[in-house]
Amino acid sequence: MTAPRRNERSRRAILTAALELLTETGYPDLTVEAIAARAGVGKQTIYRWWRGKGAVILEAMVDSVPPNAVLPDTGDLRADLRTVIRATVAEFADPRLSATTRAITIETLSDEALAEQVRDQLLRPQLAAVKDRLRAGQATGQARDGIDLDLTVELLFGPIYHRWLLRNGPLTEGYADELVDLAMTAITP
Amino acid sequence: MTAPRRNERSRRAILTAALELLTETGYPDLTVEAIAARAGVGKQTIYRWWRGKGAVILEAMVDSVPPNAVLPDTGDLRADLRTVIRATVAEFADPRLSATTRAITIETLSDEALAEQVRDQLLRPQLAAVKDRLRAGQATGQARDGIDLDLTVELLFGPIYHRWLLRNGPLTEGYADELVDLAMTAITP
Repeated sequence: MTAPRRNERSRRAILTAALELLTETGYPDLTVEAIAARAGVGKQTIYRWWRGKGAVILEAMVDSVPPNAVLPDTGDLRADLRTVIRATVAEFADPRLSATTRAITIETLSDEALAEQVRDQLLRPQLAAVKDRLRAGQATGQARDGIDLDLTVELLFGPIYHRWLLRNGPLTEGYADELVDLAMTAITP
Repeated sequence: MTAPRRNERSRRAILTAALELLTETGYPDLTVEAIAARAGVGKQTIYRWWRGKGAVILEAMVDSVPPNAVLPDTGDLRADLRTVIRATVAEFADPRLSATTRAITIETLSDEALAEQVRDQLLRPQLAAVKDRLRAGQATGQARDGIDLDLTVELLFGPIYHRWLLRNGPLTEGYADELVDLAMTAITP
């Protein structure tokens, strides 16, 4: 047996429809039927290629991430971290992107296999890019040698998740900069 | 019209049944029917008092939190933060407690009103207790005066959420201590 061959035009139509509908209806009311109707394909086409709506949304997100993410390296670690943390805060503050993140988070909390995919395909590459930038910062003496890079990455991104999950404060550029400054105090030699 | 009067014995039976079933079946498969059967009440009794399973679980959690949470104050800020962060990490590592947190997180991501209840009734009091302890640490010169206390609380708890959500590393006592040490470096005068 061979895996069902995908038609690239249908695939793109399905992923686009899924992201559009997600913004319009929110994740709980999103259905595979509606995605199929919007994309102009049969429901069975979607179920042949994906396990369900969570898997469709995940593939749409992976598709929209540029491969081999690399952080800017201007030589100024604080400035480069501000750039990436500002962008991340802006994503969580944006209603459309936040809806997608919300959807994926709900799915990954309910589905261990999907959680693994999200972590490995979507998040690890992004977090690895930040770790690479921190490592370069260690080489130029802008970050301490002894720090745990995994923990440092969590120190930068964890607070944003926390504020977003708990809707506990504004997600602004000022917040992003304050967060980077506090984290930099922790890791500067 | 008056609100339906609750029978305290039924209420306790329902909350206990809900937490038990949550551990046994996980949140997606948890049903109001099963809670009612386990508690020995009619399904309508539950729907008369709560909007759905998310609201039942939330009340069970609020019920299990001691009122007026206060952090220990031994005079040593680092030691006291280690105590609370170790306890939090242990909660996220515990399968039963983690299942409950997972359930509540899924519900709050889907339901704005419930998110508000969780934030105000469950989380704010706990985070406020940590802020009080940090304020006492400022008074004794163990924490900088200028720090944003909301952000500092996020710096302590955000990484734990991040690691738990992404299942990205072990949730151990050593991790808790390392996290507190890094955060202390950021806030020590």
